[in-house]
Amino acid sequence: MIPLTKECLNQVIVKRAVQSHKGSYGRVVCIGGRKQYGGAILMCAQACVNSGAGLVTVMTDASTIPALQSRLPEAMALTFHDPIAELVATADVIVIGPGLGTDKIAKECLAFVLSHQTATQWLVIDGSAITLLAQHPLDFLFPEHIVLTPHQKEWERFSGLPIAAQTIDANQQAQQRLGCTLVLKSEQTHIYTHKAIYQNTYGNPAMATGGMGDTLAGIIGGFLGQFGKTDQLAESAIGAAVTIHSLIADELADKHYVVLPTMISEQLSKTMRRFCPLTR
Amino acid sequence: MIPLTKECLNQVIVKRAVQSHKGSYGRVVCIGGRKQYGGAILMCAQACVNSGAGLVTVMTDASTIPALQSRLPEAMALTFHDPIAELVATADVIVIGPGLGTDKIAKECLAFVLSHQTATQWLVIDGSAITLLAQHPLDFLFPEHIVLTPHQKEWERFSGLPIAAQTIDANQQAQQRLGCTLVLKSEQTHIYTHKAIYQNTYGNPAMATGGMGDTLAGIIGGFLGQFGKTDQLAESAIGAAVTIHSLIADELADKHYVVLPTMISEQLSKTMRRFCPLTR
Amino acid sequence: MIPLTKECLNQVIVKRAVQSHKGSYGRVVCIGGRKQYGGAILMCAQACVNSGAGLVTVMTDASTIPALQSRLPEAMALTFHDPIAELVATADVIVIGPGLGTDKIAKECLAFVLSHQTATQWLVIDGSAITLLAQHPLDFLFPEHIVLTPHQKEWERFSGLPIAAQTIDANQQAQQRLGCTLVLKSEQTHIYTHKAIYQNTYGNPAMATGGMGDTLAGIIGGFLGQFGKTDQLAESAIGAAVTIHSLIADELADKHYVVLPTMISEQLSKTMRRFCPLTR
Amino acid sequence: MIPLTKECLNQVIVKRAVQSHKGSYGRVVCIGGRKQYGGAILMCAQACVNSGAGLVTVMTDASTIPALQSRLPEAMALTFHDPIAELVATADVIVIGPGLGTDKIAKECLAFVLSHQTATQWLVIDGSAITLLAQHPLDFLFPEHIVLTPHQKEWERFSGLPIAAQTIDANQQAQQRLGCTLVLKSEQTHIYTHKAIYQNTYGNPAMATGGMGDTLAGIIGGFLGQFGKTDQLAESAIGAAVTIHSLIADELADKHYVVLPTMISEQLSKTMRRFCPLTR
Repeated sequence: MIPLTKECLNQVIVKRAVQSHKGSYGRVVCIGGRKQYGGAILMCAQACVNSGAGLVTVMTDASTIPALQSRLPEAMALTFHDPIAELVATADVIVIGPGLGTDKIAKECLAFVLSHQTATQWLVIDGSAITLLAQHPLDFLFPEHIVLTPHQKEWERFSGLPIAAQTIDANQQAQQRLGCTLVLKSEQTHIYTHKAIYQNTYGNPAMATGGMGDTLAGIIGGFLGQFGKTDQLAESAIGAAVTIHSLIADELADKHYVVLPTMISEQLSKTMRRFCPLTR
Repeated sequence: MIPLTKECLNQVIVKRAVQSHKGSYGRVVCIGGRKQYGGAILMCAQACVNSGAGLVTVMTDASTIPALQSRLPEAMALTFHDPIAELVATADVIVIGPGLGTDKIAKECLAFVLSHQTATQWLVIDGSAITLLAQHPLDFLFPEHIVLTPHQKEWERFSGLPIAAQTIDANQQAQQRLGCTLVLKSEQTHIYTHKAIYQNTYGNPAMATGGMGDTLAGIIGGFLGQFGKTDQLAESAIGAAVTIHSLIADELADKHYVVLPTMISEQLSKTMRRFCPLTR
Repeated sequence: MIPLTKECLNQVIVKRAVQSHKGSYGRVVCIGGRKQYGGAILMCAQACVNSGAGLVTVMTDASTIPALQSRLPEAMALTFHDPIAELVATADVIVIGPGLGTDKIAKECLAFVLSHQTATQWLVIDGSAITLLAQHPLDFLFPEHIVLTPHQKEWERFSGLPIAAQTIDANQQAQQRLGCTLVLKSEQTHIYTHKAIYQNTYGNPAMATGGMGDTLAGIIGGFLGQFGKTDQLAESAIGAAVTIHSLIADELADKHYVVLPTMISEQLSKTMRRFCPLTR
Repeated sequence: MIPLTKECLNQVIVKRAVQSHKGSYGRVVCIGGRKQYGGAILMCAQACVNSGAGLVTVMTDASTIPALQSRLPEAMALTFHDPIAELVATADVIVIGPGLGTDKIAKECLAFVLSHQTATQWLVIDGSAITLLAQHPLDFLFPEHIVLTPHQKEWERFSGLPIAAQTIDANQQAQQRLGCTLVLKSEQTHIYTHKAIYQNTYGNPAMATGGMGDTLAGIIGGFLGQFGKTDQLAESAIGAAVTIHSLIADELADKHYVVLPTMISEQLSKTMRRFCPLTR
């Protein structure tokens, strides 16, 4: 078990190359925010943009788009009636699930994304997409480029392991069978990868509020888009995303009784800057 | 008559348990914001989320939802055309009334909520819901878990007591007949409970602006969701909600001629933190 | 000609009475914001709320309401399809014109407001409402409670005086014929009342940006609602509104090349506090 | 090749004349923001308003307007179904392209604008409008008052020069044939005019995020509206716009890992003030 400390941020958050452009930092697509859960994809996309993704596109309900444009003009926006094929084909990272719901449109969209994953593309599967997969299992084409981010109840539904039975060993075995990266969220989040188990050493109960997981999914998406060029780098990027999310929350909890998800997103760019070495 | 001072905040705003999650801090439903009064439920929900409620869902007009998502992505949102039964059944606290109006939909919704209250569920009845009850009396299933938050005119309509006749004794007798908690808002708000009468010692006329009551209702909802696990704790939580609402307004009035409701919500998390003991 | 200096703010912005409520500070109705000019009424209403009006209702196009609720939940909102009679009958102050346009709905609405003015009600007529009156003259029922706020071109249209002919004397004569208060906006705004001519001594060209007049109209509305209980007090309140609008702009121009209207609204409450004597 | 340094800002950002009004600082029209790209025109318009344009009107999809009004009430808003002739005829500057897309409506709109340019009117052609021109060449009526702002790929499409062949000489020859000003965006932006080539000396890779170009187009529009009264002044204004955009980004990058476009707009007014001499 490898503890994740802030030193990992120094490794992952590298100085950007002078000769680079927005395409260099990832095309990230965030899918979700349907019906009553519109806010979930707004928080996910805000985290993703603020974590530095080069180009962020949101696929969501038409009714969610005015709020998205109002909060985050940096993101592009499509509805579930728009063509999905090109969007998915050109994405470096797809984050699917925050507020996606579990109806027919959600199912079809998830099935399309999973069946069209390309070999170099990362999928982050969160929230109701995990619940959907528990109900309707689908094959993973490139599980080595898939991150599952369940909380304990979602993991119970998906893996069949009751919360009490979610031991390190049991989780690891389930992860090995799946072949994907597992970010198992709890008051002490663990990351299970092909090679190791990582343990989050930050975080606090002021974070126990709706939307915190949507925000983490957005950061993971943004970090994979920027810092995940090789599998080894991607593994570090996922760890760094979990770390910075909780580290910012700890810093905010010095002054706040509740840490809202959007507060974390607002701190991302400044906090990343603190950990980025100026010269290499 | 027990004066409410800031010491009550130290008692109520406890350190969160490490082993907790968003479900630990209350599922709060806020119902209202119809037609011209959309802003009322936005202010209520903002106060509720910022006071630390774990999960907040708003039931409102479809036309109010874009603004809700834009201001407060942390809240989930349903319309009056969505199914209400499960929402009400799973809520720990329901705040009903801010901007609800008094038409048929409002009446039916209030009747549904009152007739489906569960034994452990708290209802906060505010604004036009009180006017509705004055016009069309309904039974309280669990009055010991109901908070009424009228201002003096609403209380006149509801209790039949003209403002000049709203003496401590008369109010107390009316409250005892009702069996619920009465938060009677005025320039010196009093809380009448089964056991005692509390008097707010803070507050100032800079607060005399539309939406102040909606914000208080949201804080009461959030505090009951987090701090109201027993009836005794709930009584303290209601007092603390009234106290922090006025205390923040007093602090803001040092620098502001007018204290807008949303300014209070923005200070909640930081102010709560000041009163939360770090160790227990 | 009486110069308006910051001392007038000390006179007008009085300490609020402890025994007061939102009704004590004016029911103000803001009418306008149609079609392409939605933003005008948003800026007007924001100024009005931030200047301390007790209850603000906006009548505007349905399409403008989501942005209003998103920016300013404190305001209530009606469309031009909603009943206007009660709204107008219960208003202490009506600000009509910012972004109202000049079509049939605008004309009918203006005609209704002018023909239903009550003896104690103040009207602030701004922007396209002035253009409309130039095209279709209407009677003023209580001109002593009407404020016209044209800029020089609108005043030319309304009074028939070309800008070059808008001398103090000519303006005064026109104002005397009308019987209303004239706030003639220019790089040095003058106020013509029944008794005197006042001259704004603040203001700067960083204010030369769209929406500045809408914001002034909102402040005048808010100040009349709070500080205009007698005709003498109302005259001072109008002067104070013009003064604080330009004074804040001057303070902001120390650090800003452009002073946007919404920046002024954001400073209102704090600036008013500085000029409000703590004890009387 | 002339390096652009911050001294150019002192020359361009002149003290405003006391006798001036919003019309003195330019009527700027921003056209774009269609379908999934609504945010692009929001960022463009925000930059334009914050850079000091006197009157800004946005022509965009109806679905983009609520977010525009919510973020930027200072801007007026029209849809592509509204009459365009008067809007174009009265504009001092038209910025066309941010998020315009390439469908029939986009093509027709661009063709109308290009074919109705007046002799004193500036056009800033950005984003998808450049792609459209590459596909469907159109004549420039007054190329000396046209600014093209492609990034390298858009320039490749438009000029036929592959990125590797975009040498200073080749670009200059293409610009001379076109007769317009070319702002060729890259990690070191160059400006090609009738008289000279300028080189941006600021900028950093934290700017590599979607919307940065839309923001630059808005600043160019705002600066031409205010500071472009003669052709010589306009040339300086374009250089100053490129300079301040990158200079602010450099200052922000001291504390931020990512510099979002809207962060730059928020700093414009304060930064312009620093470079504006108080007395002349």
